[in-house]
Amino acid sequence: MSVEKIKRIGVLTGGGDAPGLNAVIRALVKTAIRVYGWEVMGILDGYDGLLTPGKIKPLTLVDVRGILHRGGTILGTTNRTNPFSVPRKARGKILNVDESEVAIHTVRKHKIDCVAVVGGDGTLLLGNRLRKKGMAMVGIPKTIDNDIKATDFTFGFNSAVTTAMCAIDKIHSTAESHHRVMIVEVMGRNVGWIALYAGLAAGADAILIPEIPYDAREVAKKIREREADGRNFSMIVVGEGAMPKGGKRIYYKAEGSDKYGRLGGIGNYLAKQLSKYVENEIRVVTLGHLQRGGSPTNVDRMLGMRFGHEACRLIAERKFGYMVALRGDDIVDVNLEDVIGVQRAVPLDHPLIRLAEDIGTEFGR
Amino acid sequence: MSVEKIKRIGVLTGGGDAPGLNAVIRALVKTAIRVYGWEVMGILDGYDGLLTPGKIKPLTLVDVRGILHRGGTILGTTNRTNPFSVPRKARGKILNVDESEVAIHTVRKHKIDCVAVVGGDGTLLLGNRLRKKGMAMVGIPKTIDNDIKATDFTFGFNSAVTTAMCAIDKIHSTAESHHRVMIVEVMGRNVGWIALYAGLAAGADAILIPEIPYDAREVAKKIREREADGRNFSMIVVGEGAMPKGGKRIYYKAEGSDKYGRLGGIGNYLAKQLSKYVENEIRVVTLGHLQRGGSPTNVDRMLGMRFGHEACRLIAERKFGYMVALRGDDIVDVNLEDVIGVQRAVPLDHPLIRLAEDIGTEFGR
Amino acid sequence: MSVEKIKRIGVLTGGGDAPGLNAVIRALVKTAIRVYGWEVMGILDGYDGLLTPGKIKPLTLVDVRGILHRGGTILGTTNRTNPFSVPRKARGKILNVDESEVAIHTVRKHKIDCVAVVGGDGTLLLGNRLRKKGMAMVGIPKTIDNDIKATDFTFGFNSAVTTAMCAIDKIHSTAESHHRVMIVEVMGRNVGWIALYAGLAAGADAILIPEIPYDAREVAKKIREREADGRNFSMIVVGEGAMPKGGKRIYYKAEGSDKYGRLGGIGNYLAKQLSKYVENEIRVVTLGHLQRGGSPTNVDRMLGMRFGHEACRLIAERKFGYMVALRGDDIVDVNLEDVIGVQRAVPLDHPLIRLAEDIGTEFGR
Amino acid sequence: MSVEKIKRIGVLTGGGDAPGLNAVIRALVKTAIRVYGWEVMGILDGYDGLLTPGKIKPLTLVDVRGILHRGGTILGTTNRTNPFSVPRKARGKILNVDESEVAIHTVRKHKIDCVAVVGGDGTLLLGNRLRKKGMAMVGIPKTIDNDIKATDFTFGFNSAVTTAMCAIDKIHSTAESHHRVMIVEVMGRNVGWIALYAGLAAGADAILIPEIPYDAREVAKKIREREADGRNFSMIVVGEGAMPKGGKRIYYKAEGSDKYGRLGGIGNYLAKQLSKYVENEIRVVTLGHLQRGGSPTNVDRMLGMRFGHEACRLIAERKFGYMVALRGDDIVDVNLEDVIGVQRAVPLDHPLIRLAEDIGTEFGR
Repeated sequence: MSVEKIKRIGVLTGGGDAPGLNAVIRALVKTAIRVYGWEVMGILDGYDGLLTPGKIKPLTLVDVRGILHRGGTILGTTNRTNPFSVPRKARGKILNVDESEVAIHTVRKHKIDCVAVVGGDGTLLLGNRLRKKGMAMVGIPKTIDNDIKATDFTFGFNSAVTTAMCAIDKIHSTAESHHRVMIVEVMGRNVGWIALYAGLAAGADAILIPEIPYDAREVAKKIREREADGRNFSMIVVGEGAMPKGGKRIYYKAEGSDKYGRLGGIGNYLAKQLSKYVENEIRVVTLGHLQRGGSPTNVDRMLGMRFGHEACRLIAERKFGYMVALRGDDIVDVNLEDVIGVQRAVPLDHPLIRLAEDIGTEFGR
Repeated sequence: MSVEKIKRIGVLTGGGDAPGLNAVIRALVKTAIRVYGWEVMGILDGYDGLLTPGKIKPLTLVDVRGILHRGGTILGTTNRTNPFSVPRKARGKILNVDESEVAIHTVRKHKIDCVAVVGGDGTLLLGNRLRKKGMAMVGIPKTIDNDIKATDFTFGFNSAVTTAMCAIDKIHSTAESHHRVMIVEVMGRNVGWIALYAGLAAGADAILIPEIPYDAREVAKKIREREADGRNFSMIVVGEGAMPKGGKRIYYKAEGSDKYGRLGGIGNYLAKQLSKYVENEIRVVTLGHLQRGGSPTNVDRMLGMRFGHEACRLIAERKFGYMVALRGDDIVDVNLEDVIGVQRAVPLDHPLIRLAEDIGTEFGR
Repeated sequence: MSVEKIKRIGVLTGGGDAPGLNAVIRALVKTAIRVYGWEVMGILDGYDGLLTPGKIKPLTLVDVRGILHRGGTILGTTNRTNPFSVPRKARGKILNVDESEVAIHTVRKHKIDCVAVVGGDGTLLLGNRLRKKGMAMVGIPKTIDNDIKATDFTFGFNSAVTTAMCAIDKIHSTAESHHRVMIVEVMGRNVGWIALYAGLAAGADAILIPEIPYDAREVAKKIREREADGRNFSMIVVGEGAMPKGGKRIYYKAEGSDKYGRLGGIGNYLAKQLSKYVENEIRVVTLGHLQRGGSPTNVDRMLGMRFGHEACRLIAERKFGYMVALRGDDIVDVNLEDVIGVQRAVPLDHPLIRLAEDIGTEFGR
Repeated sequence: MSVEKIKRIGVLTGGGDAPGLNAVIRALVKTAIRVYGWEVMGILDGYDGLLTPGKIKPLTLVDVRGILHRGGTILGTTNRTNPFSVPRKARGKILNVDESEVAIHTVRKHKIDCVAVVGGDGTLLLGNRLRKKGMAMVGIPKTIDNDIKATDFTFGFNSAVTTAMCAIDKIHSTAESHHRVMIVEVMGRNVGWIALYAGLAAGADAILIPEIPYDAREVAKKIREREADGRNFSMIVVGEGAMPKGGKRIYYKAEGSDKYGRLGGIGNYLAKQLSKYVENEIRVVTLGHLQRGGSPTNVDRMLGMRFGHEACRLIAERKFGYMVALRGDDIVDVNLEDVIGVQRAVPLDHPLIRLAEDIGTEFGR
């Protein structure tokens, strides 16, 4: 790739929905056009937009009006398309075909000098692979799970925590009125950030996260201690990837379960376990996709805007293969090679875990 | 029961949680004390408070301060205690014992001249039976499902609809961004009021309710019609008691499933059905107990207050065996004998169903 | 007007903003097109759309997608244009010109067989006058103040009450922490419905409404009684049109004050009065236009949809000069002649006033 | 002060209300009792609790139950009491008396080894002065304005920004429907943090802050540019301490205006200025005390808890005269001497200002 001036950029959003995506797109389009004088092309439905004809369209200032406060992404998204392995029918069979050259070709054909890829670990990894084949790109990290390495937070996380916290707040009074144990299962397939933050913020009595395999008896003990203390109800927050000590993750319980919603995830499993040890009525609420939707919080709108704005600077500086990241209150650049493929779990010595245990929260260890 | 002057009343809340219970209690206590000069006794945890010693306490103006906006009930509740059939251990076995005389005795011992019973059909029915054995009572209908006969609406319903509508609003943008079919399962074990109201208010494309057995192919047809029209996503709201044509209710899928949350209710069942007919990704969200919690809406606070206020008048007029009810915008008295044991389903010719179908909502018939 | 078949209708929204307008438009357009096969023309910016060229455009099913949950109106609105009196420059002066013939002509030119006029008393009155000059029309009542005769409620009111109630809820804890008297001024220029509903629902200690001229000393007495009772804070809700006994409305304080927001309305006036009688710190919050905005509640979405849907029936039945109205839980037809020009104030014997006084709310009388 | 072991601590909250105060108190009490084994005394109503008998009471684990999600402070607060200058009646006059010795004496009498002072700059400054006279203390910074030096953020700020942003979101659709200029005045007497954050997050077209004196003609130019671009409405966010170029702060317009709410602050002043340059209708909404109330956001609950938790460590380490502070995502210790009396304004080269200007936000300079 020659060192010619950038004239036109593209932007795509991939992976699961996250509040703040439109804030990213709006800031990126406005900055690109107003500050740098670039044209911007919207690539629809993630990488599918690079493989399917007719899915690239100009993005103007008019297109990004009135979208800042909206959930979802005006570009569409998918977490299914991998340009290096596309299922195609051939001679009556489904074969996975490497169509990365098609993607590269599409980008060139549209004279897109650089693509801003907004996505989670998987989406960024694919972007980086395409870069090596000739597609200039920069990354913008997106994950409500907050599991991307090298960025303190990503947009979407605060909104997900807010949704979960408000739900737990709502359920609290029912737990108290009915003297029940309420289990709220929140997102976080591999990491416990949402559970930790939402649980702490909502005053949960126990928080179970993938990073700390739990002993159901310890949770039951906490419930009984509260009873002895005159508090005959308990609120338990469990991340979907949590697992019992010595057990294994059960969130992929049934074949195809993910497709139709989870048929009895860890929340229900925990309920069964606890019913052996405590007398209380137990109820489970699984928040699921609620956590990916809704108008973004101010935290996520700001972070999304900052990422979109700084991604333009990355492009202007031709720092291809880098992504923007939040460090403290600053936006920094990070080499994708140092980041992707590594998950950012909650460290066991995280100050919030110590805080939580100090004020009496049970982690089941 | 002699026609002596009322001096002291009791109040109990039974059955599932419903936003607005505290509004009822506050208005009832304030009216009883300020207007009529009665004492008020709080009976804790539904009928359990009449069977278990130490569960009756004075309710003063101080006790009802600052509770109007809170979910839950300061009196506690349960949907398990039936004074006519109490499971008691005797000679190593669990036997169901009729302890209704204990309840009557408790009321007399505390010199309670009349009990205001706040509850759903089951709770009111038990109250009426106790009345026949000598406990003066009046009823205040409570059900988020809105299934009590003779009252247009009950408190809790509007809050539940609001929670469901806001959840569907949130999920909408994800459905659109991902081109998915999203199924939201809402409460309503036997009747479809919540599904009908929340679905309409949130602009659902299909609404499935127990009153109209559905044909999944009709729902799939609607989804495909939308696709053909350039709308490659759909939002389906399904009441938990909905059932396929020719099928039967499946919400009680597994033995004991209710205890630990529903292990795959109608939402998941529908997803499986639809996956045969449409290509889209399908996701299910089950709102569950979210719908019973949270601060009541102004509609439910007002209705709760009006019910609590008017229940005092019923008591003063010695209209025992009656309950308060909403008719249009008026509070009226209804004889419990005419009401209990009959469920108020959505009539098939309800104006909202015609409205919904006129604007293109699919009911699967 | 001949009894030809309706082929094309128009719709305009006039007067102040109200949550639910888009729900009306969506239901009306969908019903008109899907059920009756009519074309629909959107008339922009209220009656201005009938006077200014280029302000009439087709409204299709595509135009009303995704608008149900949005505040505002996609048609635009104004509360300034009166076709019978339009300020026009002529020979260096501003003269008011009757351009009603222009409006009639515009409707005919666009072959609009009937106009659905969505608006408050003023807008409906003008519509009715245009009808007498030859423009077929039906009315849909809209006012957040709830002051239109013959309809129990209008859409927008419940959303305004919700916004006010939530604001008062928020302010409550500050009042309590600081031991302050907080005065919250809500909308209602001539009637006290919002103040009455929001005040009751939020547990206000005093509610001052235009219908009951208040004595500030009675309010002060209530504040002192609460102090004596250990409650050293008070929450007062005052409708903007409230006035002291023997006084007159002061909400139009300064020339042009309405243009830039009210420069010290009744809330501030009351604060000054109270400061003579009580020691507490007093603070005033004026909610203003907050009450007209935001996503409509489910109550207002439903009512808006029902009004829009039924308005089509009115048109089909050629009941020109009628408006839809809510009576109990039914939609009825009302002759505009019987309705317009009369304001629906809170009756002094309204059940909610008695309820409020019974539970200790002060009205200052 | 001897280096004896801490046995009993006190805690007081001073200054204006801020969401998160109860989160601080709860974490501090739980940590003090559970981790360190200290007793905790609650000092009521800020420094008034040290001067008025009967305003110190034990704070137990029971007292802090169920308060995490509540606005306000269970300890009460005031922004009026200064122990060094207490207005007392003496011989018919009001004289300001130094009662700091009384405060010191009270602390000693109650055997309080250290006081955790939660407050803004003024409250912390007084605490530090009392420390020099013999009262061991540590500080916890609190200000919704975010104007305390040395801490990136304080609790309460994010909740205030959220309230302001949601209000602006609500008002947006009215602005658009009516083609109006809407001015929203937010808090920030001396600094523009709330205006900057809420304005950016809500997509305001112009943001006016105290740090950048504004030229109304520049704002009017922005409004006209939008008109020319087909956007005939504008949203302007103005901090209460903003001021016109060459002008001076006018938020203290009238003698005593603060006592009864502001009688026409900068929002109304700006409206008058703009009306000279633009034709649009202009409306002003002043959010006022709304911004101090309501349930804290998760950000503020977390930060409050972290501050309360870490304050115990400060006490245990006898770092009297220090306060906790947020730096990046870490809690650090800061010497009060380096902090108090200096306001933290928005730096003119703040990245968010550059971002805002890059995407087209007008600051009026």
